[in-house]
Amino acid sequence: MAPSDDVKVLGAPPSPFVNRVQITLNLKSIDYEFLEQKVGFKSELLLKSNPVHKKVPVMIHGGKSICESLIIVEYIDEVWTDGPGILPLDPYDRAMARFWAAYVDDKLWPTLKGIRSAEGEEAKVAALEQVMEAMMLLEDAFVKCGKGKDFFGGDTIGYLDIALGSFLRWLRATEKMGDVKVLDKTKTPRLFGWAERFSSNAAVKDVLPEVEKLVEIAKFFAAKAKAQ
Amino acid sequence: MAPSDDVKVLGAPPSPFVNRVQITLNLKSIDYEFLEQKVGFKSELLLKSNPVHKKVPVMIHGGKSICESLIIVEYIDEVWTDGPGILPLDPYDRAMARFWAAYVDDKLWPTLKGIRSAEGEEAKVAALEQVMEAMMLLEDAFVKCGKGKDFFGGDTIGYLDIALGSFLRWLRATEKMGDVKVLDKTKTPRLFGWAERFSSNAAVKDVLPEVEKLVEIAKFFAAKAKAQ
Repeated sequence: MAPSDDVKVLGAPPSPFVNRVQITLNLKSIDYEFLEQKVGFKSELLLKSNPVHKKVPVMIHGGKSICESLIIVEYIDEVWTDGPGILPLDPYDRAMARFWAAYVDDKLWPTLKGIRSAEGEEAKVAALEQVMEAMMLLEDAFVKCGKGKDFFGGDTIGYLDIALGSFLRWLRATEKMGDVKVLDKTKTPRLFGWAERFSSNAAVKDVLPEVEKLVEIAKFFAAKAKAQ
Repeated sequence: MAPSDDVKVLGAPPSPFVNRVQITLNLKSIDYEFLEQKVGFKSELLLKSNPVHKKVPVMIHGGKSICESLIIVEYIDEVWTDGPGILPLDPYDRAMARFWAAYVDDKLWPTLKGIRSAEGEEAKVAALEQVMEAMMLLEDAFVKCGKGKDFFGGDTIGYLDIALGSFLRWLRATEKMGDVKVLDKTKTPRLFGWAERFSSNAAVKDVLPEVEKLVEIAKFFAAKAKAQ
């Protein structure tokens, strides 16, 4: 695997942000030690490795800590250049991948949470509308970025696939909890097909958490938030 | 300048995000056409070029639009490789520059706005405390990233210099409006010296807006927000 085999990941399995790092390491065939962190608990190692944000994922490579999921993904791509490329090679394609990955984090993820936390039918419908707007834009971006191929990254899983794909099980959990449909064959046929391909990929399938487990976690945190 | 000379920037001069693009183009000695957009007004060209976020900056290069300031900065660095490097070459150094640039956008900028919009002395003091915490972390990051040299980028202005430096005049405007001191010789001596060097650099000095102008703009928007 080289360069330097000493790779550790501090993470919690249900975190989509942690899953991004795991998927990228798998795609590059890099062995790593997973140091599981309890959800809601800050270990000494976590506080030492990410003193600014105090959150997972953190990747420790040769003793140096790298934080923030998409920054870690780019780091892995830049260090292990002999594995499959994660970012596209063309600068414009790279800019597009980065643009939509930021969109996924800044727009899609918060609105997805909005469906779960909505109080009352009206608020839920409004949140769902926002999510669907984002999904339609991503359906369109899939064509532009993937150029008609299987993934946003073209023939293989790339940066934007990882950024969006890490949320897939949370998306399914949200659908289940909110009794709504976000990703389906008629509204977003391309993303529907892509989601199937992404989730069943060898580098991905054992990383993404079970939907039932995520529903449980989301309910636990919602109850905790209400009790406060 | 090549490759392809057709560079346009849609922007408004008081925007620190627009300034980032201007500074990067200047550093790389790339000529560009500045298409000034009125603050608060969305031109047809802007809506067409950035239909997702509908905001400046947008860089149009050879007919293709690139959006989001730091993504544009990376794009410029990747296309015009013959000019001075903006991102460091080493993957870990790159990850650090990206980490702190994201911190500047996600933490420093919102808390800086918090000082200006604080209602009452107590809220202002709390906002100022948050800003100072961020500044102390950046003072420390300056040593780690810049390795004792003149800039975060080392001997020359780099990615993190541009990310943070674009806020310098807004920082001064905030100090003036809030009657507070954020960047001074005793509390943050390294950043103080860096700010002088950055602001007087040939690629920067004609780009950064006047403090008085920014105070005027901030007051206008604060009054507008109150009236609504």
